Amino acid sequence: MSESLNHPKTFDWEKGLEGGRAPFPGSRKVYVQGSDPSIQVPMREVIQTPTTTGQASGEPEVLPNPPITLYDTSGPYTDSEAAIDIGEGIAPIRQSWILDRGDVEEVDRLDSAYAREREQDPALTGVRFERTRNPFRAKPGRHVTQMGYAKQGIITPEMEFVAIRENMRLEEALEGLKRHHPGVDWGAQIPDAITPEFVRGEVARGRAIIPVNINHPEVEPMIIGRNFLVKINANIGNSAVTSSIEEEVEKMVWAIRWGSDTVMDLSTGAHIHETREWIIRNSPVPIGTVPIYQALEKVDSPEDLTWEVYRDTLIEQAEQGVDYFTIHACVLLRFVPMTAKRLAGIVSRGGSIMAKWCLAHHEENFLYTHWDEICDILATYDAGVSIGDGLRAGCVADANDEAQFAELKVQGELTLRAWERDVQVMNEGPGHVPLHKIKENVEKQLEWCHEAPFYTLGPLATDVAPGYDHINSAIGGALIGWYGVAMLCYVTPKEHLALPDKDDVREGVVAHKLAAHIADLAKGHPGAQVRDNALSQARFEFRWEDQFRLALDPERALAFHDKTLPAPGEKSEHFCSMCGPKFCAVKITHDVRENVRREQGLQERAQAFKEKGGEIYVKE
Amino acid sequence: MSESLNHPKTFDWEKGLEGGRAPFPGSRKVYVQGSDPSIQVPMREVIQTPTTTGQASGEPEVLPNPPITLYDTSGPYTDSEAAIDIGEGIAPIRQSWILDRGDVEEVDRLDSAYAREREQDPALTGVRFERTRNPFRAKPGRHVTQMGYAKQGIITPEMEFVAIRENMRLEEALEGLKRHHPGVDWGAQIPDAITPEFVRGEVARGRAIIPVNINHPEVEPMIIGRNFLVKINANIGNSAVTSSIEEEVEKMVWAIRWGSDTVMDLSTGAHIHETREWIIRNSPVPIGTVPIYQALEKVDSPEDLTWEVYRDTLIEQAEQGVDYFTIHACVLLRFVPMTAKRLAGIVSRGGSIMAKWCLAHHEENFLYTHWDEICDILATYDAGVSIGDGLRAGCVADANDEAQFAELKVQGELTLRAWERDVQVMNEGPGHVPLHKIKENVEKQLEWCHEAPFYTLGPLATDVAPGYDHINSAIGGALIGWYGVAMLCYVTPKEHLALPDKDDVREGVVAHKLAAHIADLAKGHPGAQVRDNALSQARFEFRWEDQFRLALDPERALAFHDKTLPAPGEKSEHFCSMCGPKFCAVKITHDVRENVRREQGLQERAQAFKEKGGEIYVKE
Repeated sequence: MSESLNHPKTFDWEKGLEGGRAPFPGSRKVYVQGSDPSIQVPMREVIQTPTTTGQASGEPEVLPNPPITLYDTSGPYTDSEAAIDIGEGIAPIRQSWILDRGDVEEVDRLDSAYAREREQDPALTGVRFERTRNPFRAKPGRHVTQMGYAKQGIITPEMEFVAIRENMRLEEALEGLKRHHPGVDWGAQIPDAITPEFVRGEVARGRAIIPVNINHPEVEPMIIGRNFLVKINANIGNSAVTSSIEEEVEKMVWAIRWGSDTVMDLSTGAHIHETREWIIRNSPVPIGTVPIYQALEKVDSPEDLTWEVYRDTLIEQAEQGVDYFTIHACVLLRFVPMTAKRLAGIVSRGGSIMAKWCLAHHEENFLYTHWDEICDILATYDAGVSIGDGLRAGCVADANDEAQFAELKVQGELTLRAWERDVQVMNEGPGHVPLHKIKENVEKQLEWCHEAPFYTLGPLATDVAPGYDHINSAIGGALIGWYGVAMLCYVTPKEHLALPDKDDVREGVVAHKLAAHIADLAKGHPGAQVRDNALSQARFEFRWEDQFRLALDPERALAFHDKTLPAPGEKSEHFCSMCGPKFCAVKITHDVRENVRREQGLQERAQAFKEKGGEIYVKE
Repeated sequence: MSESLNHPKTFDWEKGLEGGRAPFPGSRKVYVQGSDPSIQVPMREVIQTPTTTGQASGEPEVLPNPPITLYDTSGPYTDSEAAIDIGEGIAPIRQSWILDRGDVEEVDRLDSAYAREREQDPALTGVRFERTRNPFRAKPGRHVTQMGYAKQGIITPEMEFVAIRENMRLEEALEGLKRHHPGVDWGAQIPDAITPEFVRGEVARGRAIIPVNINHPEVEPMIIGRNFLVKINANIGNSAVTSSIEEEVEKMVWAIRWGSDTVMDLSTGAHIHETREWIIRNSPVPIGTVPIYQALEKVDSPEDLTWEVYRDTLIEQAEQGVDYFTIHACVLLRFVPMTAKRLAGIVSRGGSIMAKWCLAHHEENFLYTHWDEICDILATYDAGVSIGDGLRAGCVADANDEAQFAELKVQGELTLRAWERDVQVMNEGPGHVPLHKIKENVEKQLEWCHEAPFYTLGPLATDVAPGYDHINSAIGGALIGWYGVAMLCYVTPKEHLALPDKDDVREGVVAHKLAAHIADLAKGHPGAQVRDNALSQARFEFRWEDQFRLALDPERALAFHDKTLPAPGEKSEHFCSMCGPKFCAVKITHDVRENVRREQGLQERAQAFKEKGGEIYVKE
């Protein structure tokens, strides 16, 4: 297919990244070093202001409050020390780890024919990211995957990195840990502290994945699994009509600023290949794609798809560094008629494409029939697979139906076959599901798919919320995350209506970060409540600035507060605009508490006196 | 306390109500008549566009789609036939029902001394709503409550009204009922059709309440109970600093437009009395208040509160027509020290006021000690009581603690005592609660409070979401609604930060309407899924206009869609901006479905032939 060049030759990155590079208020980027100086795990440290007490008594006392460590997905963009040039890409922090293992070789001539073509197309000169290094592939016969290493008992730097990252310096959060609900974990096995060995064990048995393509050395390793913090994914990507390369890079940086743990590039329009390269080279989080979208761009219609076109696309993207692929290999020919009686048919793009292919050819899904070959390709690059849910329910009426569960069973079958080849696997599910049918999905997935991480879109718990589907999905997501889902795919307010813009990305990411955190609290994840406790303490002590800093979205919290009480002095006021000083429950509570203390003090002194034999005083 | 007059003498109602009076797109207001012509139950009927099929075959067929009936809280404001003059108040539709019962008498001289004072204050002339009728009270010794009538076996027009309203013409929604999940109801007993007798029984045993003060004849009766649709409440109200009377009336009309079933006026600033009168005279939904706020305005500080001041305030508000009062009668002296070890102390305004009073006087809460007298006053006007949760948790660390549950037990005790006096009761709960501790709240409330309706703020499932607490609360709300809560109090995005403006009210109401609907679906409420199925059918058939009309917020859905495809023709497009025509799953599904049908048709014909003995054809 020929494409007209409609992108500018120079990108206005500065403008686009403005919002994404600003450091978070009252926070500093810190790096926790691992066993080797090359292991530098980024975290955000929130500095708290001190508490001042005793003003009333005229003996003011200033007590310091400890800094709070937060999980940080924003990469070097929020590090004011980091020099970033989008045209160069961010630092390839994993490069030495990959090379040190000695099991990869450099690719002089790209294995993907399509990629070679694009590289030589002079019309793309202004659009193309100019590579400064060649990709890698596994040496012949080698599986260079984290699962492969884990099975051999090897703890990789990536595993150590995620162990440090998940722990969030919990050993320093003593105060915040004092009050911590144990949670209800529905059979998860979350340890008190995450060790590299625990990570290795989870990856080895397939219960967690670390999506890190050997051609994405820029990624800061993260882990997706039921026994770790619940993660979220943001989808970006242009369609035939809208968006440009800058916008997509900008959305990626924006999405990780607000907390997205991975980003899927779902582009379907022009310059998919080039857009992806720009995104990967600048992304510190794993990038996922759905290769069938690009394969379809290369042919006229679903019927024309072939294994050869798909295979080349898979290699093309793996050579670029895509960390995980959604592959709709379980939409089998015999399942397609099951969707005919549905209210909303098939709503997955990949699912509908494969269904059409199957029917047109009256043959089994070629992704299913070539599964082992697909896995061999994935193992060559350590690209993970997210087995697609092409038959997920598109409305609550279709939830948990025959078609959906038939596919889920096959997802389990292919999971085992991928594991045999050391490929890291997630399973996708389940679309629109009313609350009371969510648990069944998780239970079946855990059983049929052998505890491989479950990665869910929502679920959306009703169909009537266009314009508010991010909330709808956050409701389903919080619940399914609690039950055991490892990663939630975000939904934005524009779901079902239009493509999300930058504001929608922020809304969607924060709503799902919120849902994931709620799930972590309910599961009793160690340390999850430290942030809540610190924020609540700050709230109770009228430390307004600390409340904002510790909020999921500090900028919004501050902006909302400033709308009513904009003067800087009012951020230290011991009341707020909602109730005013007279009706402030917290202010009154401090008085009450003072009163209770005084009284208990008297009682204790009386008791002490009594114990010393001072009966007379008491009787008196 | 003297107040300066800072309100304009003329109100700009027209401007303020602009958005609230616009009819919903593609909808009409209908009234279903009951056994008497005076019973006219409002509903919103959504007109659907027809489905056109067979374009491909050249034989287009136009199939009509049935109208869909929706529950409608917006009152006469969305009835284009209704003439509304805010200065007059809306029509007192219940007046004849109240008088016909023959158990009330007109009040010539107001019973509240404070109200009499306000009525005679010449400085308030421009601010005061000029009453055109006197209030009522029960004849001596009578309990004029819906519970009292229900216990006597009387089905009131109010009960019949809510039965019709809850049913939403379900008998006409045959198509939408075909696919309906049965739900999981956690012990609720929801019948297939709501009859007036069922309503009576639920009110008689206290499992549901119909908040309808005899002095609020303008209210369109609604019911709050576990076996009915989950309701939501919106809080409005000015504080010492901000807002005016117009703004509060406007917010009320705005809140009910988006689906608020009741409205609480939580004003604490100037002109509380006058603001409330304007709101009640123009409100078709029940109005709730927290009388202690106004009582506190009348004295200097919590310690100065007296039973006499409170009693007069209660009567003042009951004479105006407040439908339910939040009363913090269960914050007992001995519970206050339990809050001293909390992370966030007492966060309920009413709770902190009463705690301070108790400690200052070293006496039991006067609301508790005067409970029977309070109930007698409530029974005189059929004002319901919502027993406050003054010790609710203000952060997840404090959830489900000793103080909270100690209070809940006393709520149950006072519930029984109120029922003895035929007073309709709800119980409030539980504040900040992580997901895994929500169910315990519902179970304890059901048991200890004898299934009186549970009315909850949120719960908020984490503390870290300032700016997004409406989503936080909708997550907790959906879950607790499913478990059995009867009404959810909304939370807006400004929670913890500032007072909500009009936009925040809309966000908060829609988020909680969504949560309530998700709960209804999960409980398997008959008819709840009709709207989802209709919207999904419309979505699947590319009837864009119908999708918008059936959405919780049609205006937003349309606006979001228009951002990318604004041309009118594109609302009939068989694809959308998200994926474009080539990648449209729904478009492809229609092809797939056509293919499946064709194939099944061939198979059926082959089978028929075979059955007729046509073996030869098959073998051939």
